[in-house]
Amino acid sequence: MWLFNDPPRKPLQERYQFEITDAWLEHVQKSSVRFNSGGSGSFVSEDGLIMSNHHVGANALQKLSDPQHDYLRHGFQARTLEQERRCTDLELNVLMSMEDVTARVNSAVKPGLSDEAAFKARRSVTAAIEKESQDQTGLRSDVVTLYQGGRYHLYRFKRYTDVRLVFAPEQQIAFFGGDPDNFEYPRYDLDICFFRAYENGKPAKVQHFLKWSERGTVENDLVFVSGHPGRTSRLLTVAELDYLRDYQLPKRLSRLFRSEVVLLSYSGRSQENARRARDDLFGAQNSRKALKGELAGLLDPKLMERKAAAEKKLREAVAARDDSKETLPAWDRIAAAQKILGENARAFNLLEGAAGFRSQLFSIARTLLRAADEKPKPNGERLREFTESARQSLEFQLFSEKPIYDDIEELELADSLTYLVEELGSTNKLVELILAGQSPQARATGLINGTKVKDVSVRKKLYEGGAVAIAASTDTMIELARLIDPDARAVRKIVEAQGEAKQQAHAQIAKARFAIEGTSNYPDATFTLRLAFGTVKGYEEGGKHIPSHTTIAGLYARAAEQEYRPPFDLPKLWLDRKRRLDLKTPLNFVSTADIIGGNSGSPTIDRKGELVGIIFDGNIQSLVLDFLYTDEQARALSVDSRGILESLRKAYDAKTLANELSKGGH
Amino acid sequence: MWLFNDPPRKPLQERYQFEITDAWLEHVQKSSVRFNSGGSGSFVSEDGLIMSNHHVGANALQKLSDPQHDYLRHGFQARTLEQERRCTDLELNVLMSMEDVTARVNSAVKPGLSDEAAFKARRSVTAAIEKESQDQTGLRSDVVTLYQGGRYHLYRFKRYTDVRLVFAPEQQIAFFGGDPDNFEYPRYDLDICFFRAYENGKPAKVQHFLKWSERGTVENDLVFVSGHPGRTSRLLTVAELDYLRDYQLPKRLSRLFRSEVVLLSYSGRSQENARRARDDLFGAQNSRKALKGELAGLLDPKLMERKAAAEKKLREAVAARDDSKETLPAWDRIAAAQKILGENARAFNLLEGAAGFRSQLFSIARTLLRAADEKPKPNGERLREFTESARQSLEFQLFSEKPIYDDIEELELADSLTYLVEELGSTNKLVELILAGQSPQARATGLINGTKVKDVSVRKKLYEGGAVAIAASTDTMIELARLIDPDARAVRKIVEAQGEAKQQAHAQIAKARFAIEGTSNYPDATFTLRLAFGTVKGYEEGGKHIPSHTTIAGLYARAAEQEYRPPFDLPKLWLDRKRRLDLKTPLNFVSTADIIGGNSGSPTIDRKGELVGIIFDGNIQSLVLDFLYTDEQARALSVDSRGILESLRKAYDAKTLANELSKGGH
Repeated sequence: MWLFNDPPRKPLQERYQFEITDAWLEHVQKSSVRFNSGGSGSFVSEDGLIMSNHHVGANALQKLSDPQHDYLRHGFQARTLEQERRCTDLELNVLMSMEDVTARVNSAVKPGLSDEAAFKARRSVTAAIEKESQDQTGLRSDVVTLYQGGRYHLYRFKRYTDVRLVFAPEQQIAFFGGDPDNFEYPRYDLDICFFRAYENGKPAKVQHFLKWSERGTVENDLVFVSGHPGRTSRLLTVAELDYLRDYQLPKRLSRLFRSEVVLLSYSGRSQENARRARDDLFGAQNSRKALKGELAGLLDPKLMERKAAAEKKLREAVAARDDSKETLPAWDRIAAAQKILGENARAFNLLEGAAGFRSQLFSIARTLLRAADEKPKPNGERLREFTESARQSLEFQLFSEKPIYDDIEELELADSLTYLVEELGSTNKLVELILAGQSPQARATGLINGTKVKDVSVRKKLYEGGAVAIAASTDTMIELARLIDPDARAVRKIVEAQGEAKQQAHAQIAKARFAIEGTSNYPDATFTLRLAFGTVKGYEEGGKHIPSHTTIAGLYARAAEQEYRPPFDLPKLWLDRKRRLDLKTPLNFVSTADIIGGNSGSPTIDRKGELVGIIFDGNIQSLVLDFLYTDEQARALSVDSRGILESLRKAYDAKTLANELSKGGH
Repeated sequence: MWLFNDPPRKPLQERYQFEITDAWLEHVQKSSVRFNSGGSGSFVSEDGLIMSNHHVGANALQKLSDPQHDYLRHGFQARTLEQERRCTDLELNVLMSMEDVTARVNSAVKPGLSDEAAFKARRSVTAAIEKESQDQTGLRSDVVTLYQGGRYHLYRFKRYTDVRLVFAPEQQIAFFGGDPDNFEYPRYDLDICFFRAYENGKPAKVQHFLKWSERGTVENDLVFVSGHPGRTSRLLTVAELDYLRDYQLPKRLSRLFRSEVVLLSYSGRSQENARRARDDLFGAQNSRKALKGELAGLLDPKLMERKAAAEKKLREAVAARDDSKETLPAWDRIAAAQKILGENARAFNLLEGAAGFRSQLFSIARTLLRAADEKPKPNGERLREFTESARQSLEFQLFSEKPIYDDIEELELADSLTYLVEELGSTNKLVELILAGQSPQARATGLINGTKVKDVSVRKKLYEGGAVAIAASTDTMIELARLIDPDARAVRKIVEAQGEAKQQAHAQIAKARFAIEGTSNYPDATFTLRLAFGTVKGYEEGGKHIPSHTTIAGLYARAAEQEYRPPFDLPKLWLDRKRRLDLKTPLNFVSTADIIGGNSGSPTIDRKGELVGIIFDGNIQSLVLDFLYTDEQARALSVDSRGILESLRKAYDAKTLANELSKGGH
């Protein structure tokens, strides 16, 4: 997960005799696309065509669907530009430049400040850097924290907010095998989705896009993955990992079990319910399976022993150094901060994280309430999500016409209010105020029926009316948001201060690590652009060799073996057109590239910089990659560029699209 | 939920001009059957034919199935006696007599004893009464605690352990609508299953069985339900209800969410997996839905206010009485005991309740270990499940050849060991000993691979070898059971002593209540035989009238409306034979009879004592019946006797069975 401005030149040279050029890097960087809904993608034609995963596009597909058009389930195909459908709230970012601003950020945080004051100082300088950059360049500008606080880089992104849906296959084939086969291998998934970026109402002309490889890969090929891994925990201290294992992961999992059951139960009542909940249910199941794997990894004493041994070694090395007196306390400082974070986690998750108020309408209401409070403040003193540099994205989301269903809102809100009571107790003062003498179910019904913020024009009015309009509002959701805001802000403040304490301590550890080990390592993932490399390679599992590639023939065999029962059923098109397809065409393959959630949709690239596949999953053994990299069994799964083209041409008759891929443009 | 030896003569006389005779009561009592796997049923022919629900028979159906015969899913039909299949471990009980032994039990518990000593004294006298009765009558003899300790009755049961499967429909039609429609109404379920009791290898000849009503019911008919409600909480104090609401129900629910997801995920991988997990998954989903309803009830402040007001009124009435000094502290005593129970609940559930070791093999190993410890003790000092009167049932279970699947065992054990670590923490001393330096997954694999108790002959040898054989055993599961037994027994002892404290306090409250209100009330449910009554009656919901009866036509309409997608798909037989069926035949109906889980399979009976239906569910509004009875919307759901006969005759060509029902014998 290397930084594009600090690429792995040496290992690539030594191990693969591959010399990575600046031109290659720039080309790949600017061909890579971040999906702000959570995921990656890449430009694949000069006319702004973008490929990502079906499950990354799912959020947009869900929001474009209605009772008569279930695009998420049944797929979508625009045969002309006119038929391309504009997404309600999809924002894409392309990284244009990076700049190290560590010195400026750190110099603004004077030594001796309290954690809270240090946090404020850092927030202020960050907001200033971002605003300056945005004013100068017009680009979205984010200061990114790397090495848990060891470095600060300013990233500038080109934003695309007019993004249109071009093609999606049926969910059956995109997610063939469903939850049971998720994170497994061998696999047979056509997990792809095409969008097109528009500018000024016309397809965006882009300078950088990835050429489509018709050749694909063979075993042992060197491949690269350029994408946006969301979060890894490899540089965490043992105290932080203990917390993850003992509290955070079990707690998140138990919430996911609950959500999954609630959504499954709702979905079972009708097909329309199933349609409405489809993407949320996928998300709950996908996260649950990933987190179960992560927790299992942390519960393996061997992993934790390795982590403890590495930490001991580093602490000993630090102890032998001149600046040890300064650095050695960092680990204890992190442990102390982690303890306070643990004590506040429950309140933070429920109130600030809104685990007690799972409702889109609540979230909109809170954004309106806080915008009224934050906008009048100086830019550097605002909550991070209300700074000037974040404003465009915030407003784009807030005023989008995404569908909101009252029944799901009520279901989720009633369940989460019940969870709130369970967690804080029914005699808790705040809980009593929130429930207002009603049962969670009755209160949820009242809140949903009494709010008007579903109406975008109402939102705009309240947003533009600012503090006066908000103060005058008796909207049920605004009132709820107002009721909990003092507590939510208070616990957020504690969490931010402790986060700052950890960041400073990590910065010291990072400094020592750079001095001892050199900078020959990459920071933990932060949902920013990274470059991974590896080779196409099968592996051994349970005494059996799992080959690197699967084929379209394997897809049909797996479906037959499972008697075509969901989630192993095939779309009608695939049953009807089997004879047209070249069954030997590779469909999926694995490589040792280092990926994690957020990398979904990343292009898999060969030495020439051509697209040979698209990342869509990891195997079950890859889930420990959150904590350390291993290539023994952990594998990244890609859809093969050849399988994609074969499917588009012969199963979907999507000739225009296929030709655009082959030619790199219309 | 009236006792058969204290029936509701007055309300029946006054409200329905129905005089309940001793002969009527005896006939109904002895026609009623308890399924020890959890449920109710009734004799429906003189040749030992028994009807219950499909979902009550499911446990037996699951255990009779194998990869080639999925009786639970596809149904079963014996066309001759020879084709009837003996169940692996199904024990049925028929209540033959009841005797009040309160005075003898209480006189053995001398005043001034500590809770622990009082518990021991009560256990000892109970075991003695049971053993005497069993020796004298040869009947299974259980001392039953009523009114939470206000009364003790000795119940004598005839046991049937040679029980054979006669008929089961497909799960699709028995549980049509599946989890989504569970606890809903209108419904269209053929939730029935027929067994036959055998004695000496021949069908049991029984004196009492229910005549089949061909007439059925109409709106406003008086009906009775005779069955075994499992547990209600209506006489609990507010302190106990608070505990249920704030701790016990949320905790049980979160375990159920987890189990459901684990089983669903396993089931999705193959049809054979789905077959193996079918009954467990049903159980998890059914309990989850019931408990969610109960919790929602307790979270309604109106319900809790009613409870608090009733308690206040009773306490005030007690305060006005002569013996108030003795009785008034009872409520505080219960609250104090409940507090200690709460503090020990986690350890009790994990260790003694085995929530940390969900594995049939573990449970077998523990029974073997404890049998070796308990058998040498005097009968009155043994753990309750090892007394002489419990021995036959214990051995019948222990040596049954029910199927045990290593993969499910490993799945459940790994998950529950993970849960154990989450609950007690990975640095807990006992947890460290249990995991032996391995991850939960690796440890589970080792435990399952290393045990031999799956083999019934090994179990017999260890059981007969007693303490010496057990002490010498190095079986992995025996060793695990041995490792945790001191802690498990210690926490059980605390829980038993506090249970005794609550029982004594409840006995005092009950005494006062009898004196103030008379004995015109029934005790909370205890999975013993009770008689409920009510009328056949539709209800209003969301401004709509829900009629009392549904028809076979409604079944087809509901399936069509849901486009025949599971769980709304119909068995092939039902699609093929639609034209044969009289679509106007009533299929399900609702009544105001007071039921709860455990009543499933209870006969619904008319004034004449004829069977007009069979209870299979309650509606969602009935779930608060756990806490108080209401007939506004709460309804008991029955399958209609007419719908059953029509289905057997025309859908299943089960003429022999249908004739046996009509004629009351072969």
